[in-house]
Amino acid sequence: MADSPNPQVLAFSGGVGGAKLSLGLSKVLPAEQLTVVANTADDFDHLGLRICPDLDTVMYTLSGVNNTEQGWGLAGESWNALAALEQLGAETWFQLGDRDLATHLRRTELLSQGHSLTEVSQALCQSLGMAVRLLPMSDDPVSTCVSTDEGELSFQHYFVRRQCEPAVSGFRFAGIESAKANPDFLDLLLSPRLQAVILCPSNPFVSIDPILALAGVRDALAACQAPIIAVSPIVAGMAIKGPAAKMMAELNMPVTAEAVAEHYLGLVDCFVVDESDAKLAPQIEQLGMRVDVTQTIMTTLADRERLADRVLTIARDMAA
Amino acid sequence: MADSPNPQVLAFSGGVGGAKLSLGLSKVLPAEQLTVVANTADDFDHLGLRICPDLDTVMYTLSGVNNTEQGWGLAGESWNALAALEQLGAETWFQLGDRDLATHLRRTELLSQGHSLTEVSQALCQSLGMAVRLLPMSDDPVSTCVSTDEGELSFQHYFVRRQCEPAVSGFRFAGIESAKANPDFLDLLLSPRLQAVILCPSNPFVSIDPILALAGVRDALAACQAPIIAVSPIVAGMAIKGPAAKMMAELNMPVTAEAVAEHYLGLVDCFVVDESDAKLAPQIEQLGMRVDVTQTIMTTLADRERLADRVLTIARDMAA
Repeated sequence: MADSPNPQVLAFSGGVGGAKLSLGLSKVLPAEQLTVVANTADDFDHLGLRICPDLDTVMYTLSGVNNTEQGWGLAGESWNALAALEQLGAETWFQLGDRDLATHLRRTELLSQGHSLTEVSQALCQSLGMAVRLLPMSDDPVSTCVSTDEGELSFQHYFVRRQCEPAVSGFRFAGIESAKANPDFLDLLLSPRLQAVILCPSNPFVSIDPILALAGVRDALAACQAPIIAVSPIVAGMAIKGPAAKMMAELNMPVTAEAVAEHYLGLVDCFVVDESDAKLAPQIEQLGMRVDVTQTIMTTLADRERLADRVLTIARDMAA
Repeated sequence: MADSPNPQVLAFSGGVGGAKLSLGLSKVLPAEQLTVVANTADDFDHLGLRICPDLDTVMYTLSGVNNTEQGWGLAGESWNALAALEQLGAETWFQLGDRDLATHLRRTELLSQGHSLTEVSQALCQSLGMAVRLLPMSDDPVSTCVSTDEGELSFQHYFVRRQCEPAVSGFRFAGIESAKANPDFLDLLLSPRLQAVILCPSNPFVSIDPILALAGVRDALAACQAPIIAVSPIVAGMAIKGPAAKMMAELNMPVTAEAVAEHYLGLVDCFVVDESDAKLAPQIEQLGMRVDVTQTIMTTLADRERLADRVLTIARDMAA
């Protein structure tokens, strides 16, 4: 983006899928032109530590220290503390590597000293040499609660402990009413420097919706002059990663990119679907949004960069 | 000890030296006949974790999982979390191994759930398969503060961060006035089943004195019918481990086993010195206590067992 003196791109991200496209964006944009806002509604307290899975996945990915095979956590990780915790009778359903533990220990320490989550994230990212700005959606705690056929479960209980097995019937973001959207994030949404807002191919229900549910965000997006572009997390009726497709089926939605587009209706200006869903383009256009068809599956780094370039090109075209 | 139907031996311990003799005692006594009470005045909070160095050294040693070369910490330990903490700007002067971290995480979690330190220690020891009873001297926090030529320092700051370099002029046990001695410990001191109280060769000022300073302990020791036997931590004018000798010099005490005996005057019935200090025996006897001369340096496991046997023999002889 080079149309304005200091153009800005803003990406909304959950964990793995969002981190992939964010990495692509970070490779094709100067660091000072990209801000990633990450969902924090799946943050939780575990063994006395404050854990922020989406923030960490984006941070590790954009710092180049992530485990690219499993998609989360750190490359070359060891698991000695977790093995010892198991022997000591602690809960070990949430996988905590030794180096990852350091992140949670340091975060918890800095938070207990009175620093905001934004400040803490900035300090951690700086320590890892990350240049892109990563913002938690809010400094206030928000907790996704999943309504299931086993009752309401906290998100990590549903997601990790129960491996997404219970059938979902809805979601609640506890604390969302009183949580303040990150002010830097809101400022950027309203800034004339903003050239594009990108909803990464993250889970619409538990990764993107919490960000959208913060007071002021939908209004700011409605007022925003930059194009808002979403990349479908559903490809050929399946989610690339995570429970989005399973959730859609349980919520009695068609498991299609079109249904995701409908979920974002009135919000996004352009919806990007994978080549394998090209046949859905006319129907999605009929919903009243622009559609772009391209390869959205990001297997290699080149895939990430190509999709990032494509999305930025769409934004440029739409602004023209 | 087999004179009574259910005889009991009680050992007072700090860290490394105390753990060595406690291990010897655990090898020559049935587990149900030995209780070790450990100093907790050097416990501290670090990175949000509650750390109990002396309890852990005794627990690791008596569980057989300790690092025998360095004297503290765990055998086969890894240091990946600490390396990551350093990168994240955390304080790393206190060495925290990955498996050791699990102990502190689990302890902190259980304490935050409302369990007492005694209950937590029991759970940790059980998890490690340790059969001997290990009691923290108190469930209430007590903090050793060291008066030095650099001002008053918290114990771990003095001991680990400053490597005992500042010259000491005194000690204060913050919280000792309101701390309650462990009730099981006090009960045992007053029990007719008690056959021996052993002050391990730990630092008199910062390991044994805090235990003695708890309300009721000195009275109970004075009333106790079992022989009270101390093993000198000073051998040939030197401490085997730790700053005891340096502290004595800075406190203007002669750096001798005799000076330690004098420190324990009125409290112990028998003082055990190393063969190399045999010449001090008459002077120590003149102070008004029995003296035993034996090899007190514990290099091998056999040394630990031999000294434990010797101390128990003294107790038997004195009771006869």
